[in-house]
Amino acid sequence: MPTDQNQREKAQKWFRELRDQICAEFEKIEMELSGTEFSDDPAGIFTQKAWDRDTDDGAHGGGGVMSVMKGRVFEKVGVNISTVHGKFSDEFSKKIPGADDNNGQFWAAGISLVAHMRSPHVPPVHMNTRMIVTSKQWFGGGADLNPIFENDQDSAEFHGAWKACCDRHDPEYYSKFKGWADEYFFIKHRNEARGIGGIFYDNINSGDWDSDFDFTKDVGKTFLDLYPTLVRRHMNKAWTKEEREAQLIKRGRYVEFNLVYDRGTTFGLKTGGNTEAILMSLPPEVKWA
Amino acid sequence: MPTDQNQREKAQKWFRELRDQICAEFEKIEMELSGTEFSDDPAGIFTQKAWDRDTDDGAHGGGGVMSVMKGRVFEKVGVNISTVHGKFSDEFSKKIPGADDNNGQFWAAGISLVAHMRSPHVPPVHMNTRMIVTSKQWFGGGADLNPIFENDQDSAEFHGAWKACCDRHDPEYYSKFKGWADEYFFIKHRNEARGIGGIFYDNINSGDWDSDFDFTKDVGKTFLDLYPTLVRRHMNKAWTKEEREAQLIKRGRYVEFNLVYDRGTTFGLKTGGNTEAILMSLPPEVKWA
Repeated sequence: MPTDQNQREKAQKWFRELRDQICAEFEKIEMELSGTEFSDDPAGIFTQKAWDRDTDDGAHGGGGVMSVMKGRVFEKVGVNISTVHGKFSDEFSKKIPGADDNNGQFWAAGISLVAHMRSPHVPPVHMNTRMIVTSKQWFGGGADLNPIFENDQDSAEFHGAWKACCDRHDPEYYSKFKGWADEYFFIKHRNEARGIGGIFYDNINSGDWDSDFDFTKDVGKTFLDLYPTLVRRHMNKAWTKEEREAQLIKRGRYVEFNLVYDRGTTFGLKTGGNTEAILMSLPPEVKWA
Repeated sequence: MPTDQNQREKAQKWFRELRDQICAEFEKIEMELSGTEFSDDPAGIFTQKAWDRDTDDGAHGGGGVMSVMKGRVFEKVGVNISTVHGKFSDEFSKKIPGADDNNGQFWAAGISLVAHMRSPHVPPVHMNTRMIVTSKQWFGGGADLNPIFENDQDSAEFHGAWKACCDRHDPEYYSKFKGWADEYFFIKHRNEARGIGGIFYDNINSGDWDSDFDFTKDVGKTFLDLYPTLVRRHMNKAWTKEEREAQLIKRGRYVEFNLVYDRGTTFGLKTGGNTEAILMSLPPEVKWA
């Protein structure tokens, strides 16, 4: 496969470091809450749970670590890192670049994060980045914000940060990846966007691994700089029962997207991935009208 | 298409009558509640909402009526009847018996019911029956019970009633349709059954329309006789907060099944069906651990 061991180790190490930095920052935020409904509760801390990929059929290997925090700011936030390798089914190999002419062999590492917040004023968020190797090699990832009540300043800062991140690497990235997010994070059967979008990218291979890896690292760093600002902006404001209800209904849309359209979820569930890790993205409490 | 107008009208009329009988019985049950958490609330009544199938592309027609009750026994129960006709996409026609050699033309009528209950002791239920016409014609349907806490008497009566119903029509039906339910109502990614099963049948065409229609009518009548007994058996018992939590978690499994595997749901959502009617089956409140 077209990467050396050193590149794979660098990517894995980065996803782990990014996980550590994000979890540390989120735990810091937990300690800063004051004045809202849950501020007398203890600050949340992450718990980790490692999982191994089932190796019964010889076609799976590797594993991952789930980090979950159920706190007073973060109602439920999950940060997964994983490194998996094995062999895709013949049918699946046809859909994955470079897998068909590689006997289905693949290697993949990545980080994936979903945050559902106590306050309806703090926008939920999703971010993931990954490196994949078949007979080809590429990076992919994305991030999108799913506010219950859209806030112009948040939206401008969120989109602005991703534009700046993309522009640091390639002048063509932003419009392409923003467009891809708008198209991807859309709930067709509701004819409504899942949130305000962000960026979505895949199959990134410019021929320069270091430079592609730098972009994927920058996506992680941009997220780490950006999202805590939005959380701190809103987390100390009170909310009404009606706002909470609107949040629970909005979460239903998130569930619909994840179980019906999300490629990572449907791919994972249908190819024997770790169900607990995959469905960590589901909200803790949801309502449908 | 291989049925006369008279048969179609008979089927439609039956689904409507069955809907009326079920709704009347469920409203009666609502009035009988005493002694539990919600018994001071007013008894629920059904509200109806008609919908038309979108005809923009000329490929859709017909519509349906949703009946929904949010009551004190039934937390949310939906009973849909619909009669739709039109033309399947070329791709979809290949998957439906007799559609490919009929230019995709189809006609379908049916009833579909899902009940989510206030009490964790009252088992949620699903039932549906339908008549479909392409260049072929057949009946399909099924029912399954999804208790939070399994109850031996309920299970024995539920399975026993379906066995008796099947045996009245064909000695081979029950083992076949029970097996099909066990296979179908299964959440693969959790490696767990959705509930205790029941019956699931499809492509029923014995060559004798009247006799096949009698079986589908008997499924409806069996349900109408069976489920109210189970509701009345448990609805006046108190429940704990922990039992309610278990119910909300169990409902998450129902959502996962419906959005990932349920053929009616995924078919409907991906072929431009009425989203509100299709997703009426989703529980009013759900939790994921």
